[in-house]
Amino acid sequence: MDKGRLEAFSDGVIAIIITIMVLELRVPHGDSLQALKPLIPVFISYLLSFIYIGIYWNNHHHMFQVVKSVNGFVLWANLHLLFWMSLVPFVTAWMGENNFTKWPTIFYGISLIMCGVAYRILVISLIRHEGENSLLAEAVGNDFKGRISVVIYAIAIALAWVNPCISFVLYGVVACVWFIPDRRIEKKVMHEEHPQ
Amino acid sequence: MDKGRLEAFSDGVIAIIITIMVLELRVPHGDSLQALKPLIPVFISYLLSFIYIGIYWNNHHHMFQVVKSVNGFVLWANLHLLFWMSLVPFVTAWMGENNFTKWPTIFYGISLIMCGVAYRILVISLIRHEGENSLLAEAVGNDFKGRISVVIYAIAIALAWVNPCISFVLYGVVACVWFIPDRRIEKKVMHEEHPQ
Amino acid sequence: MDKGRLEAFSDGVIAIIITIMVLELRVPHGDSLQALKPLIPVFISYLLSFIYIGIYWNNHHHMFQVVKSVNGFVLWANLHLLFWMSLVPFVTAWMGENNFTKWPTIFYGISLIMCGVAYRILVISLIRHEGENSLLAEAVGNDFKGRISVVIYAIAIALAWVNPCISFVLYGVVACVWFIPDRRIEKKVMHEEHPQ
Amino acid sequence: MDKGRLEAFSDGVIAIIITIMVLELRVPHGDSLQALKPLIPVFISYLLSFIYIGIYWNNHHHMFQVVKSVNGFVLWANLHLLFWMSLVPFVTAWMGENNFTKWPTIFYGISLIMCGVAYRILVISLIRHEGENSLLAEAVGNDFKGRISVVIYAIAIALAWVNPCISFVLYGVVACVWFIPDRRIEKKVMHEEHPQ
Repeated sequence: MDKGRLEAFSDGVIAIIITIMVLELRVPHGDSLQALKPLIPVFISYLLSFIYIGIYWNNHHHMFQVVKSVNGFVLWANLHLLFWMSLVPFVTAWMGENNFTKWPTIFYGISLIMCGVAYRILVISLIRHEGENSLLAEAVGNDFKGRISVVIYAIAIALAWVNPCISFVLYGVVACVWFIPDRRIEKKVMHEEHPQ
Repeated sequence: MDKGRLEAFSDGVIAIIITIMVLELRVPHGDSLQALKPLIPVFISYLLSFIYIGIYWNNHHHMFQVVKSVNGFVLWANLHLLFWMSLVPFVTAWMGENNFTKWPTIFYGISLIMCGVAYRILVISLIRHEGENSLLAEAVGNDFKGRISVVIYAIAIALAWVNPCISFVLYGVVACVWFIPDRRIEKKVMHEEHPQ
Repeated sequence: MDKGRLEAFSDGVIAIIITIMVLELRVPHGDSLQALKPLIPVFISYLLSFIYIGIYWNNHHHMFQVVKSVNGFVLWANLHLLFWMSLVPFVTAWMGENNFTKWPTIFYGISLIMCGVAYRILVISLIRHEGENSLLAEAVGNDFKGRISVVIYAIAIALAWVNPCISFVLYGVVACVWFIPDRRIEKKVMHEEHPQ
Repeated sequence: MDKGRLEAFSDGVIAIIITIMVLELRVPHGDSLQALKPLIPVFISYLLSFIYIGIYWNNHHHMFQVVKSVNGFVLWANLHLLFWMSLVPFVTAWMGENNFTKWPTIFYGISLIMCGVAYRILVISLIRHEGENSLLAEAVGNDFKGRISVVIYAIAIALAWVNPCISFVLYGVVACVWFIPDRRIEKKVMHEEHPQ
């Protein structure tokens, strides 16, 4: 089965997710600089989520470059990922509007974990489809970054009971770790195309 | 006429439908766990509708894989399907916000029936265009799943007068039936490509 | 210049326009059949606009099938069309929520005229780019349907001072006239591809 | 790395940005001509932003025509541009709803500067990837229009302390300067394809 429409549909959904988040930046009633002040936490959480969704799009893009075809299970694994990503605008707004208090920050972390797990399921379903010796399987390797991220999210969630600000900083740290697109795949592709 | 733009446009509309539903998960005012409680039924109906829209996208995707070209009638049959699908976010929110009471649950069922009928019209218009002996016609066959779904929706609607929860369970049952993408087409395609 | 991205971008914008209109079907607070009653005019105007946007998408699709390339002027003529189409959700909601009273119905007609004029400008800019003897120029011909539509819209607007319901009926009549996709182009394409 | 999905994703995000702005044109409660009056400044700022987003899409489209491939840095430079563009609907609505008072007009200008800077970063990252002697580098040249725009935005922001209307006029002037799509690239492409 061709991967073209899966990519197009995912691009569409991710484009909408990344854009509708800005709708939560509600236009303030006043026209003073003061009126913008309550929006600062909403803006910060928007920024973090924009980076996260951007990371997922980048990795999705990178991964599907080495994918040759898809099957029914991959379609659902992809929809499963999109489902958890679709909840990001909700938790983003809840966290931002409540100034990073405990429960919103915890739920933000839970949604990040679920996205991470869903992405992992997508990777596994693709490797199962492409084969253990496929370019993709080699490129992904043991997925250290993916594993460590989920661990850090879990720690961040636990620390929200101490101070939700620590959790937020940890979410930011993971984003920084992922900021650099998946060089592993880029290298593999290059290596494949230009072997010595 | 080329099928490319019909697929792209449908992908766009379906991507928006599946994503704007999450806008009905309105950010609660409080930051406690309690504040999320009224959102549980809204979340459950969002989940069901996400699966339904996902199913339609999957089947649409599968079906158009074996379609070779489209005509003006198919374009309208497709828009007709998208029209009924575009009402799903509305009935989803109405049902969720009213905790699965009678009339919202009935209207949810009606919109599912209309989507099912519209999908059937699309299939018929495609078979008429492609020919009775086309790959598509063989792949769809007698469409037992499609027929039985509409019957179950009708039963679910009738039972809403007794207890709307039964209706909701039945909607879920149909979703489970459809969850598995249309193997018939996948098999046909494979058979066509790799005949013994 | 390639026409691919113009088509993709237009598909995206039109998909969003046709879908966000449903957001004006605001979820009623009650769960009774009565609660849906005030939504009936909103639904009717949504239905009419859905058909209109569908018609524009269909005609856009048909027209660009015979277009070979685009230039900077065509890009702007297309954006100009999308601008007027983007106002349709606004006038649709205004008309629906006010139960088809005079001014909303007039503005709905004005937006339809502007869309019609913008479409004509797009056609002219494309013919200028493709040449007077191009397939497109022949296919469009004297554009009788386009001209008569604008005349009927103008009459409908004038009659809104008498009774806005007449205007609405006239808008519906034009939609029916356009419902059938542009056979002229389909015929031309077929003729071109399979000349006797 | 292929540029196709970057274009598709950007088209999706830009299509959504340009369309959700119209959601700020909130349907008035009355049905009289008077009820539309408060919407006039919102409409004017919508019009200006529509033109700006249209300009960015046009230039993006033109630029990527001569781009051959992308890398991870370009993906992020592009997401960075989309981030600042995603704030345009917010500042547009804030400016329109406050009738072009000082602070909203200043923030509108700031978001335009940031979009301009982000676009410049994207151009530089593309030139670095394609090479100093690439078609793109030649086509962009010294980017006089880009530089002068940022200078005019800065002047406009400074003049907002005198009179925000002057700022708005200056934003409009820059839009006019950019209205004409980037002939430089069009000429380069033609020259490349049809050298004497």
